[in-house]
Amino acid sequence: MSAPGTPTLGVGMVGYSFMGAAHSQAWRTAPRFFDLPLAPRMRVVAGRNADSVRAAAERLGWDESVTSWQELIARDDVDLVDVCTPGDTHAEIAVAALQAGKHVLCEKPLANSVAEAEAMVAAAERAAANGVQAMVGFTYRRVPAIQLARRLVADGRIGQVRHVRAQYLQDWLADPQAPLSWRLDKSKAGSGALGDIGAHVVDLAQFITGEQLVGVNGLLETFVRERPVPASFSGLSGEAGEGTGPVTVDDAALFYGRMSGGGLASFEATRFAAGRKNAIRVEVNGSKGSVAFDFEDMNLLHFYDASDDATTAGFRRIVVTEPEHPYIGSWWPAGHGLGYEHAFTHQVVDLVGDLAAGRAPTPSFADGLVVQRVLDAVERSSDAGGGWVDLPTAAG
Amino acid sequence: MSAPGTPTLGVGMVGYSFMGAAHSQAWRTAPRFFDLPLAPRMRVVAGRNADSVRAAAERLGWDESVTSWQELIARDDVDLVDVCTPGDTHAEIAVAALQAGKHVLCEKPLANSVAEAEAMVAAAERAAANGVQAMVGFTYRRVPAIQLARRLVADGRIGQVRHVRAQYLQDWLADPQAPLSWRLDKSKAGSGALGDIGAHVVDLAQFITGEQLVGVNGLLETFVRERPVPASFSGLSGEAGEGTGPVTVDDAALFYGRMSGGGLASFEATRFAAGRKNAIRVEVNGSKGSVAFDFEDMNLLHFYDASDDATTAGFRRIVVTEPEHPYIGSWWPAGHGLGYEHAFTHQVVDLVGDLAAGRAPTPSFADGLVVQRVLDAVERSSDAGGGWVDLPTAAG
Amino acid sequence: MSAPGTPTLGVGMVGYSFMGAAHSQAWRTAPRFFDLPLAPRMRVVAGRNADSVRAAAERLGWDESVTSWQELIARDDVDLVDVCTPGDTHAEIAVAALQAGKHVLCEKPLANSVAEAEAMVAAAERAAANGVQAMVGFTYRRVPAIQLARRLVADGRIGQVRHVRAQYLQDWLADPQAPLSWRLDKSKAGSGALGDIGAHVVDLAQFITGEQLVGVNGLLETFVRERPVPASFSGLSGEAGEGTGPVTVDDAALFYGRMSGGGLASFEATRFAAGRKNAIRVEVNGSKGSVAFDFEDMNLLHFYDASDDATTAGFRRIVVTEPEHPYIGSWWPAGHGLGYEHAFTHQVVDLVGDLAAGRAPTPSFADGLVVQRVLDAVERSSDAGGGWVDLPTAAG
Amino acid sequence: MSAPGTPTLGVGMVGYSFMGAAHSQAWRTAPRFFDLPLAPRMRVVAGRNADSVRAAAERLGWDESVTSWQELIARDDVDLVDVCTPGDTHAEIAVAALQAGKHVLCEKPLANSVAEAEAMVAAAERAAANGVQAMVGFTYRRVPAIQLARRLVADGRIGQVRHVRAQYLQDWLADPQAPLSWRLDKSKAGSGALGDIGAHVVDLAQFITGEQLVGVNGLLETFVRERPVPASFSGLSGEAGEGTGPVTVDDAALFYGRMSGGGLASFEATRFAAGRKNAIRVEVNGSKGSVAFDFEDMNLLHFYDASDDATTAGFRRIVVTEPEHPYIGSWWPAGHGLGYEHAFTHQVVDLVGDLAAGRAPTPSFADGLVVQRVLDAVERSSDAGGGWVDLPTAAG
Repeated sequence: MSAPGTPTLGVGMVGYSFMGAAHSQAWRTAPRFFDLPLAPRMRVVAGRNADSVRAAAERLGWDESVTSWQELIARDDVDLVDVCTPGDTHAEIAVAALQAGKHVLCEKPLANSVAEAEAMVAAAERAAANGVQAMVGFTYRRVPAIQLARRLVADGRIGQVRHVRAQYLQDWLADPQAPLSWRLDKSKAGSGALGDIGAHVVDLAQFITGEQLVGVNGLLETFVRERPVPASFSGLSGEAGEGTGPVTVDDAALFYGRMSGGGLASFEATRFAAGRKNAIRVEVNGSKGSVAFDFEDMNLLHFYDASDDATTAGFRRIVVTEPEHPYIGSWWPAGHGLGYEHAFTHQVVDLVGDLAAGRAPTPSFADGLVVQRVLDAVERSSDAGGGWVDLPTAAG
Repeated sequence: MSAPGTPTLGVGMVGYSFMGAAHSQAWRTAPRFFDLPLAPRMRVVAGRNADSVRAAAERLGWDESVTSWQELIARDDVDLVDVCTPGDTHAEIAVAALQAGKHVLCEKPLANSVAEAEAMVAAAERAAANGVQAMVGFTYRRVPAIQLARRLVADGRIGQVRHVRAQYLQDWLADPQAPLSWRLDKSKAGSGALGDIGAHVVDLAQFITGEQLVGVNGLLETFVRERPVPASFSGLSGEAGEGTGPVTVDDAALFYGRMSGGGLASFEATRFAAGRKNAIRVEVNGSKGSVAFDFEDMNLLHFYDASDDATTAGFRRIVVTEPEHPYIGSWWPAGHGLGYEHAFTHQVVDLVGDLAAGRAPTPSFADGLVVQRVLDAVERSSDAGGGWVDLPTAAG
Repeated sequence: MSAPGTPTLGVGMVGYSFMGAAHSQAWRTAPRFFDLPLAPRMRVVAGRNADSVRAAAERLGWDESVTSWQELIARDDVDLVDVCTPGDTHAEIAVAALQAGKHVLCEKPLANSVAEAEAMVAAAERAAANGVQAMVGFTYRRVPAIQLARRLVADGRIGQVRHVRAQYLQDWLADPQAPLSWRLDKSKAGSGALGDIGAHVVDLAQFITGEQLVGVNGLLETFVRERPVPASFSGLSGEAGEGTGPVTVDDAALFYGRMSGGGLASFEATRFAAGRKNAIRVEVNGSKGSVAFDFEDMNLLHFYDASDDATTAGFRRIVVTEPEHPYIGSWWPAGHGLGYEHAFTHQVVDLVGDLAAGRAPTPSFADGLVVQRVLDAVERSSDAGGGWVDLPTAAG
Repeated sequence: MSAPGTPTLGVGMVGYSFMGAAHSQAWRTAPRFFDLPLAPRMRVVAGRNADSVRAAAERLGWDESVTSWQELIARDDVDLVDVCTPGDTHAEIAVAALQAGKHVLCEKPLANSVAEAEAMVAAAERAAANGVQAMVGFTYRRVPAIQLARRLVADGRIGQVRHVRAQYLQDWLADPQAPLSWRLDKSKAGSGALGDIGAHVVDLAQFITGEQLVGVNGLLETFVRERPVPASFSGLSGEAGEGTGPVTVDDAALFYGRMSGGGLASFEATRFAAGRKNAIRVEVNGSKGSVAFDFEDMNLLHFYDASDDATTAGFRRIVVTEPEHPYIGSWWPAGHGLGYEHAFTHQVVDLVGDLAAGRAPTPSFADGLVVQRVLDAVERSSDAGGGWVDLPTAAG
């Protein structure tokens, strides 16, 4: 909690569905458990439908609602714009906000195209010169077990990275009768599994290893090309309505690549892995050890230290809930695990800390562009029927 | 979220450390994700130290603070008193609150003795006649996987209960140099592992099976009888100060019993299980199947259905995050797990629903007394050097 | 494999069903993978039915068959008698064999009563004076992960033992229609789950910790008291015949106790744990660490070392298949796991090594008696309605 | 066990190291647990060094030894030649044996090149016309859990195959100082991880799904290009000698592909996955369910049935040790798991059954060629810097 006299940070959020709910919970909760150097004020939320956005403001804890994101950006009491809309609107909103001198937290993927992402990076660089900061919301970086994995790799505990094995497996489209949603519409979502969930594991692979992909080779597939039009839609489920419509994005993405340190990496993102609900799996094998994570057990990290004696070496099942673990000291006693939403709270904590210190927060828009270029390279590789696509190795 | 015009429920909380923080998060969060028929208002928190309780009110989101629980109870704007103090004060506060016509939510264990618990049940019964409700906070009942386990047992999916195997394993006292705390002082805590954590698994065993223990036979042990006096203390950890002091409670409790349906049950509660951080494990084997739970993977329930065909029968690893699962519809999409604190939010949701409906909430004080009698019987059995102690079979 | 000129060890086996098959596989296999100082010769198998035992000899690899165990014992070419019959015949056969100067390997439990076991121990002591050895077949001691567990405890890696948690869970009687067998007949089997499977976990608890139980308190239960008489019977399954008969042994046993080093222990043995097929689970928590084993994953040992740094401490999942692990150097490369029967092969290897060296093999008959006394104490405790029963603390 | 009067099958084995030991154990053991229609006779083993092969014959249970495989093939008492040599000699021996009218069991990979494999298939086809059979030893097919997986897929229990995810992870080369062996010499081994272990998961993917790969795209990598020359060498380990030598095979292989039914598949084979000892992992996701296997828990199969009701659907952890499971009826009671070597025994059982029935055993040489072509396509894709390589879709 911020001490009396702490300067405030006025926040305005654009969008208020799934991501909006998660971000709101984080803005409400962060000051309750962490000492923040700025006191967030949940000033205003923007949405197109006046009634809906007013109800959302009430439910999610925002002081006011508006129906225009431009109006939100123009307000003097808004210091930071939190962009929670679908990807096709990220560039326009984020660039406008940065130009207006507002800090920006933008949900991932940064944009629906490399060109948009590049424009956003350019805007962020210009803004940074004026002390205005931009961050992209690869929230899974803030899961304590992921932070611990990165720390172990950075500390040399697993040696040189040989293999990255990254999968994001869901199953909500396995049933061919699951209805259409905006997430299956290329004009809104940009891509399917690749950008929605594949983006996360690309970012995690690079974050944990501290390396970048230098090239990829991949394959996209749409297994079910027509789906029922939903009568109504909320969240990821819905009731079937009349007729069918086309799926214009990928159902699954499969690709491999090389890391900048010489290791190999494999990636898979799918919404067709029956029985896997939100299995984000990342394993990194190094010359001296390994780390392995599965979001289905998000409070655990598995760590193999090859320097343990031969009779007792084995993957350590670390329950990442000790006071010594990242973020945990502010939460509950050992063994009292965290959930999905906590990573969003940590994101707020880190962002607010950086803003107060005048530090550039990470992942930056440039980091988001790096991921966007990987996604784009996978698409190009797939479009070419499979083939190696090089990536620039320096960020930005 | 409560709709406009929803009647309010003024809440006052007594105590503001570990449990106070968890309850506060629940009062703040429940209306954000659930449609509540009463709108909770976090009016006031009470504590002995004026500065500390004022800071806690600010941090935890309470409108005001007071230094006297009597003052809190006396306030007109308080409809419900939430008792989060150590067990030695539960009876006095809860009885006074009920007598003042306030609903009460009282942390577990209900009291430090059967006599106190009986007085509380009597007070609750008198209050109930006036529509004033009382509930005890066996919060783990509200973990979705536990609710699902109970539902499966109640629906006959595992048949007649043959075995209950319940353990609550922690390790924060395994190190003989871990310092003293109020939890190791019998005058404050009533008992050690038995009442603090054993109470939870006794309640869970009875809740999941819908049965009661009819007798127990047990053993208490204090492995380390002197511990360093801490220089300061917060939460479960602390720095060693000068000298040592006596541990006056049990370090571990081991007991077995019979369930009212004829099954056998075994229980263990310890703070000496090195490497087990907060492992609440309950397995129930029935004539037609089994359920198994471990809080270290709190979003999972394991279910064995003996009627599955012989070649494919096996424990099902249910990721309890589907919209069809208890409480989940109000949270996140499938696979986006919950954490420790969510059970407290569910407790608020259920309690507020019951208050609005004029229903008696569960677990009632009588349910708390049932658990208290089990704990007492275990102590008596242990004091007698091991021996069977019968329990009354009807609640209350 | 024994080198040319290696002295032989003539073996005669009494009984040839489940245990006989396992022992035969061990006698056949041990010399193929291990360098044995004596070359076992599978001379003769004894059984009551001439045709059946002749077929068994052929199938299992014995040179000859006889219909009288007395005849087997009398043969000059038999140096060791391997007793694989039900428990009611152990004492008579083993004592006679020892008196005839034959080494004896006797399946567990040593006997069906303490008196018989004491007689066997006396016979073994007399025989030992003449260099004739006796061993009881607590075969699970020879699972590599169990050997490793014992070694870690003996090396002080987990410190002082605080808790033993031992369970042997099966489910082949969960169905009330499962038929009768000799294992459910007290006159043949001595006891039910207690002696058949509980004996194993009692022995494992003592073997791994290197301590003995000093007292127990327990409960036996027979859930289903009448079962169908099988038309025919083989192994653990069978077809229902006409009528029912009484179950005269326990279906389940539940007990707790104290170890000689001051730790607490809990035990459970049941054939009613739906979905648990042969789950032998032993966990030992010490002041510095823990070991945990589950036979359903018999090639794994879980080891927690509390001296690991706080951020990376966690149960290590040791795949016990490295050349450095017990017995493994003679088998396959790392990761190529062993199965149930391999422990029997290791038993032969250890026994033959001890015989050649003139060492007393373990577990001795005295060790078997220790277990028998525990089982007896549990029965007496249960018969008395629950109550503490002290055990003698020195072996024998 | 074969009944009296059962015709015999004279077996001769070429090679006697790791694979030779495993095959010998299978020939010895199969008749002890299974009723075989032919009685195998272990006539003769061939090796180059007279002393070594004589000792091996003694240890492994072969009647005689010879120093020439040609001599072995020429013997009248040999009906079947079991080829357990490194891959570079498979073609010559197997073709000669088939031409001599001997059945052949040839270890995998079938050969070190497609050309050799094609010659072997041609020889097998010619031999088949004379009732002479040939089989390749993809032994992991005979693990009961794998057989069950195939059966579930074949029975439509998981619907249309969408994803195959197959990995074979070892770590014995993770240490750069691990010494050279013939397995790292292209002239002997043909390839590295790709052919040695990748071949297994390619075969398993096709076997479980009943489909074939129609194209692949892959990457091979050698992380450590010079390794110490061992002073001596046995098995997979060895002591370092003087100097270093080149590694001429791949350390790791990464590839993806399409299955003939339209699903996607990803493959990884590596000896650099620190902490993974012999992790053969195959998961298949279909439109109605999934199966998942990990050889580190070889007695388990995980099965997800999407038709289970929404609240209880979850991966079933099937302990594949029930009498109803493949091969298990001849072994031990439920829950008494099998080990690595048992799959070799099952291979003998199936092969002998086919030979007696005059059926062509599977996997055939043609099946081995299919795998060989996949390996070759991966190499060509990798040599070309990544790029799609089509595969013929009909077997052979």
